[in-house]
Amino acid sequence: MIQLERLRKIGFSKLTSLEDAIKKLDSYIKFTSIEEIQTSIALNRILAEDIVSQIDIPPFERAAMDGYALRATDTFDASLKNPKKVKLVGKVEVGGFSDLEMDEREAIRISTGAAIPKGADTVIKIEDTNIIDDIITLYTSLVPGKNISKKGEDIPKGKKLLNRGIQLKAEHIALLSSSGFTKIKVRARPKVSVYATGDELIELGNPLEPNKIYNSNTPMISNLVKTYGGSVIRESTLKDIKEEILETLFNSVKDSNIVIFTGGTSVGTKDLLPEIMHENVTVLTHGIAMRPGSPILIGHKDNIIIFCLPGTPVAAYIGFLTFVGPTIRKMLGCIKHDPRREIYATIIKDVPLSSMGYVNHLRVKIEKTDNDIIAVPIRLKGSGIISSLTESDGIVEIPPYQEGLKKGEKVLIKLFLN
Amino acid sequence: MIQLERLRKIGFSKLTSLEDAIKKLDSYIKFTSIEEIQTSIALNRILAEDIVSQIDIPPFERAAMDGYALRATDTFDASLKNPKKVKLVGKVEVGGFSDLEMDEREAIRISTGAAIPKGADTVIKIEDTNIIDDIITLYTSLVPGKNISKKGEDIPKGKKLLNRGIQLKAEHIALLSSSGFTKIKVRARPKVSVYATGDELIELGNPLEPNKIYNSNTPMISNLVKTYGGSVIRESTLKDIKEEILETLFNSVKDSNIVIFTGGTSVGTKDLLPEIMHENVTVLTHGIAMRPGSPILIGHKDNIIIFCLPGTPVAAYIGFLTFVGPTIRKMLGCIKHDPRREIYATIIKDVPLSSMGYVNHLRVKIEKTDNDIIAVPIRLKGSGIISSLTESDGIVEIPPYQEGLKKGEKVLIKLFLN
Repeated sequence: MIQLERLRKIGFSKLTSLEDAIKKLDSYIKFTSIEEIQTSIALNRILAEDIVSQIDIPPFERAAMDGYALRATDTFDASLKNPKKVKLVGKVEVGGFSDLEMDEREAIRISTGAAIPKGADTVIKIEDTNIIDDIITLYTSLVPGKNISKKGEDIPKGKKLLNRGIQLKAEHIALLSSSGFTKIKVRARPKVSVYATGDELIELGNPLEPNKIYNSNTPMISNLVKTYGGSVIRESTLKDIKEEILETLFNSVKDSNIVIFTGGTSVGTKDLLPEIMHENVTVLTHGIAMRPGSPILIGHKDNIIIFCLPGTPVAAYIGFLTFVGPTIRKMLGCIKHDPRREIYATIIKDVPLSSMGYVNHLRVKIEKTDNDIIAVPIRLKGSGIISSLTESDGIVEIPPYQEGLKKGEKVLIKLFLN
Repeated sequence: MIQLERLRKIGFSKLTSLEDAIKKLDSYIKFTSIEEIQTSIALNRILAEDIVSQIDIPPFERAAMDGYALRATDTFDASLKNPKKVKLVGKVEVGGFSDLEMDEREAIRISTGAAIPKGADTVIKIEDTNIIDDIITLYTSLVPGKNISKKGEDIPKGKKLLNRGIQLKAEHIALLSSSGFTKIKVRARPKVSVYATGDELIELGNPLEPNKIYNSNTPMISNLVKTYGGSVIRESTLKDIKEEILETLFNSVKDSNIVIFTGGTSVGTKDLLPEIMHENVTVLTHGIAMRPGSPILIGHKDNIIIFCLPGTPVAAYIGFLTFVGPTIRKMLGCIKHDPRREIYATIIKDVPLSSMGYVNHLRVKIEKTDNDIIAVPIRLKGSGIISSLTESDGIVEIPPYQEGLKKGEKVLIKLFLN
């Protein structure tokens, strides 16, 4: 506690690097359990098993075009000037059979997706033919196999279809369905408790009292948790009362995978979180060399990870994106810990920087030009200013010991999720 | 019907351009109704009103740092070599008041977010001071206003915060919450009925019969509908039986905003959809100059839009992204009709192209290098091959009358949603 007293007097004297903070945290993150669910409702879930195809797709040789199935030899040399003729002897429908024995100079009407009848080795498109009664005139020459999808052409039986750890989108659900996977294994959503602390906070729906502000942190953090694949099991606002926070912490670690507090993590006189954490859980990091977000505290108790994020909304948001979101996704077994898309863009003005030694998070807006994407800096400072987030499209992380950015420089932007 | 007979014989002879198809469709799209919901549960909904701030944010002048509130004049010329001294006369907590009358050479301990006490005009950071008993030594000189957030500095009362038509993310919910908006107006999710047609389709969970395939289109399309903000109110698979499809159509237009069929839209003998549509609804377009996806049919009945997408999954997927998704978002009043992010990338090999006159949809995978993003073509043809979607990150739309792509060329990629 002497250390905390000192902190309150002199502030953070030594900060952990962002890299080290992530490394320390990583060794305490455990996977959530595996559950089996219907493929059709698996949107956005994280696959917990490698998927290997049990069938050939397509499962049989089929027509890739509407037309006539016939022998390629009967089309050889056919052209507009030198048409060939064959006889229509039947048709085969999608999903149906044809037990016709096809001979030379015969053809069978076939629809896209129907099984190729025995004796045929190619399909001539309807556009390349003309029919009068049962005589079909062919205007083009085809090689064997033309307009036919071979059995297993898309996916041969035994091929790995999907890797564990991917996030399932509509197209993955289609692939799983076409391969006959009714159910699949996914990881359970991490259970997350979300608390905002602070005597200054008023809950939405109540009148705003003097010197107080509306709580925006729990709605923001809870919705970020959902966006990142977690499940919010508890959400509330707490006063700066040690006993209340402590009781909440004890209750939360019983059934949560992650507990998040915002506010009270710095060195103010009512910043109770560091004291409570140091007394009751193992503190991994307190004070990280990043801006905004330096007062972040990360701890753990058994396998439950506890994040104390700053109360200023932008710092809480960036702290979430940097630490909490990736922790949720690591628990889910995601291949891609950070789901944000990264793009390069050209920065349109100088961004001078004085706070060396910190990773600085520059919020930028992107604009598309004819052949480039440009990044317009919105704001580097002002961690309370939520509109700096809603006006931005993403963040440029400026590494420590880099003296800002120069106009015209190419920067890597981590785009906010859309 | 003569026209359809002809179609079955000769295929599509004249196709509508993609641009014209969108233009025709646009005039029949109507907004859904407006509903009021709790801000906290508005994630991903589309805002249906402009939001103007009713309060100043911050609502009062407050400290931006932990430190001491005092008069700037008492810090003038202070430095490490020439420290100044002031007397601690009290403290003000976050969310609390101080009715102390501060005088010259006095200071009040203040936490980030606490209201600035009367008489103070600056805040000195705790790191720039030392305290022994009630005497504070100041090591730096400050201008008035330093480390203070002015009332309304983030958002002045009366400022427009958010525009109608945006999609609400966690940061928008935070902004709305901090501004005291308990409820907001959003547009109702369009109600969508989703049907796959085809005698060849087997429902997931059943054994695969010869010459049949598992239905992957309803799970794919339904999950795309959800991803784009619609609500799936009905979903099933239909046989190629005219009466059954017709009855389904009649029932669906009673309570849907959008009805989607996949399969049976082309010129095969069991392609019943065009006939049914021509007989029962107003057909806006049938046959569009795009690949894959050319047999798409779009119709309307009163204000209900009907899409008949090809049965091949990739063509259905691309048809959805091109027409259905944007229709859902137009009904929702979205500013951005197509939610996909666009990035530029360098294509790593030639993509020759023969089908002139069509918009070709090239699926590409992206890879990040040290200073560029490169696009690896996955596949241009093969509209049944779902793995060409799961292996890609997005689509390059190659305009009609452009002869493919040259290695090293910069291309614009529409990224799949993540």
